[in-house]
Amino acid sequence: MTPVTVLGLGPMGRALATALAAAGHPTTVWNRTPGKGNDLDATVAGTAAEAIEASPVVFVCVLNYEAVHAVLDPAALKGRTLVNLTGGSPAQAREMAAWADERGIAYLDGVILNGIVGGPDAALLYSGPRSLYEAHRDTLAALGENGVYLGEDPGRAAGFNVSLLDLFWTSMFGVVHAFRLGAAEGIGPAEFAGYAKEMAGLVPGLIDVVAAHLAEGRFPGDASTLDSAAAILDDVLGTVRANGLDDGVLRAGRAAVQDAIDAGHGSAGFSLLAAH
Amino acid sequence: MTPVTVLGLGPMGRALATALAAAGHPTTVWNRTPGKGNDLDATVAGTAAEAIEASPVVFVCVLNYEAVHAVLDPAALKGRTLVNLTGGSPAQAREMAAWADERGIAYLDGVILNGIVGGPDAALLYSGPRSLYEAHRDTLAALGENGVYLGEDPGRAAGFNVSLLDLFWTSMFGVVHAFRLGAAEGIGPAEFAGYAKEMAGLVPGLIDVVAAHLAEGRFPGDASTLDSAAAILDDVLGTVRANGLDDGVLRAGRAAVQDAIDAGHGSAGFSLLAAH
Ligand SMILES: NC(=O)c1ccc[n+]([C@@H]2O[C@H](COP(=O)([O-])OP(=O)(O)OC[C@H]3O[C@@H](n4cnc5c(N)ncnc54)[C@H](OP(=O)(O)O)[C@@H]3O)[C@@H](O)[C@H]2O)c1
Ligand SMILES: NC(=O)c1ccc[n+]([C@@H]2O[C@H](COP(=O)([O-])OP(=O)(O)OC[C@H]3O[C@@H](n4cnc5c(N)ncnc54)[C@H](OP(=O)(O)O)[C@@H]3O)[C@@H](O)[C@H]2O)c1
Repeated sequence: MTPVTVLGLGPMGRALATALAAAGHPTTVWNRTPGKGNDLDATVAGTAAEAIEASPVVFVCVLNYEAVHAVLDPAALKGRTLVNLTGGSPAQAREMAAWADERGIAYLDGVILNGIVGGPDAALLYSGPRSLYEAHRDTLAALGENGVYLGEDPGRAAGFNVSLLDLFWTSMFGVVHAFRLGAAEGIGPAEFAGYAKEMAGLVPGLIDVVAAHLAEGRFPGDASTLDSAAAILDDVLGTVRANGLDDGVLRAGRAAVQDAIDAGHGSAGFSLLAAH
Repeated sequence: MTPVTVLGLGPMGRALATALAAAGHPTTVWNRTPGKGNDLDATVAGTAAEAIEASPVVFVCVLNYEAVHAVLDPAALKGRTLVNLTGGSPAQAREMAAWADERGIAYLDGVILNGIVGGPDAALLYSGPRSLYEAHRDTLAALGENGVYLGEDPGRAAGFNVSLLDLFWTSMFGVVHAFRLGAAEGIGPAEFAGYAKEMAGLVPGLIDVVAAHLAEGRFPGDASTLDSAAAILDDVLGTVRANGLDDGVLRAGRAAVQDAIDAGHGSAGFSLLAAH
């Protein structure tokens, strides 16, 4: 089994090290703030350079690319494979690939989509040199059975990631705000949660509707129009403001709806906003 | 079977009339713009007043409360039961109940949560006088087997509705924006949809987490912190801006995250934003 190193022991780095060690890889870990790796089935290195030198394959998963650069020692990495599972933009991933290339470091970019590492529910995406992905496929399998290779462009995994995180975090803005609005209207969290889950459960089906409308290039308003959405959003906004809550997210979304209405699309479906 | 009237034949009014007629209620319909009810198993009235006079129970489901007032004829309604399934704010529902009360109209407020009318998947909520709900329970059952009565406060159904729609429409802002960001990053709608559905599928489980944190009054950052969310959102925002897309919704959400970080909560979980 290939020895591996994990740099960064936040929730994800810990999960990576746990999964790799469980799969039988001799695992070395390092974290900026000491003490985080002591409970893992791994060797805790004293410095990042020592950790890197312990393995031919080095995973890095820290807060952001600034932290990646703070952690990485290019001299130690030379001739090794770096798998960067830190979240970032496609541009950052491409810059990182060029940076690694100039320094003789084999570079694979990856993303952990759902915060799950290992097993059938993990969803990791990779992009970069196909030969590199193939060479380390068995090691990567420890992080999730269903890893997907997306192509040679090192920014592609990050492109999927930021687009999916746009959806995810915007939804989460809605979740936390809805609990607050519910509370302001005298609805307790437990009572609210059941209905909220049903409401959130409608979204996957509507994602298929939006994709179908985009594929057809038609955005019918037969189930619900932008005019109707605007009316509903005004009711929601009115209640939000009456309760003195922050209306920023809803106001911005409502403005996008208005732009489409002003452009003459009031009787089109909401899916039109996915188009342009 | 009680004769019923449906005022307003948008997608929801049509679904209401269809379900009521299918359950065997002699059904009269009316819509501002003529011609919409001709294909329904219902009598099309020439005026709203005629439609109201045809039945002891009158449903109204139009764009918003302004449209409700444009449609309703209080003289014709006197002594009848009005079930208002138009979306609105809790304050509007309460005003409407007072308006009806002053005019000798029995008033029940209701909401259609998910756009589904009839059958086991419909989710309708009602509030107002319990005796009125009980008296018309059999008729209301035609609209959905699982109608829920929430209490005497006529604004309560609307309170649930606007809070749930806050969640729903904010999520939908994320969906349409994510398709656009994906397209800008060269990801086609069909390819994107599968991953997007998985991402959206995480939300119901996180709603339970938020509700549990609220119940405990603790917002641990063990799975993911506000600092981490801020870093991710900056990556998403950077990519959105690099592609020249509207950043309004994300910017507003990011600002709310920053407020919590500035208040010293960076290592707390995102669920903290549901609390205050
Ligand atoms: N959590 C999730 O559910 C999830 C899901 C998918 C993807 N991701 C992505 O995975 C990455 C890691 O996330 P995470 O939740 O495990 O942790 P995180 O909270 O995003 O980051 C914490 C890690 O980054 C290190 N770090 C931060 N700033 C640093 C710096 N300037 N120099 C060196 N190290 C620094 C921390 O070290 P210290 O301990 O010394 O502070 C710690 O190891 C992120 O890019 C995130 O977007 C997370
Ligand atoms: N569609 C959904 O999925 C859904 C789900 C849950 C709840 N709702 C709620 O249900 C209600 C109806 O929604 P909908 O989608 O069926 O239709 P809608 O598009 O919101 O409204 C269209 C209906 O309102 C009438 N209307 C609009 N302005 C009017 C005015 N000033 N005077 C008289 N009538 C007027 C229209 O008449 P004309 O034909 O003459 O224009 C038509 O009957 C809304 O409050 C909506 O929020 C909808």
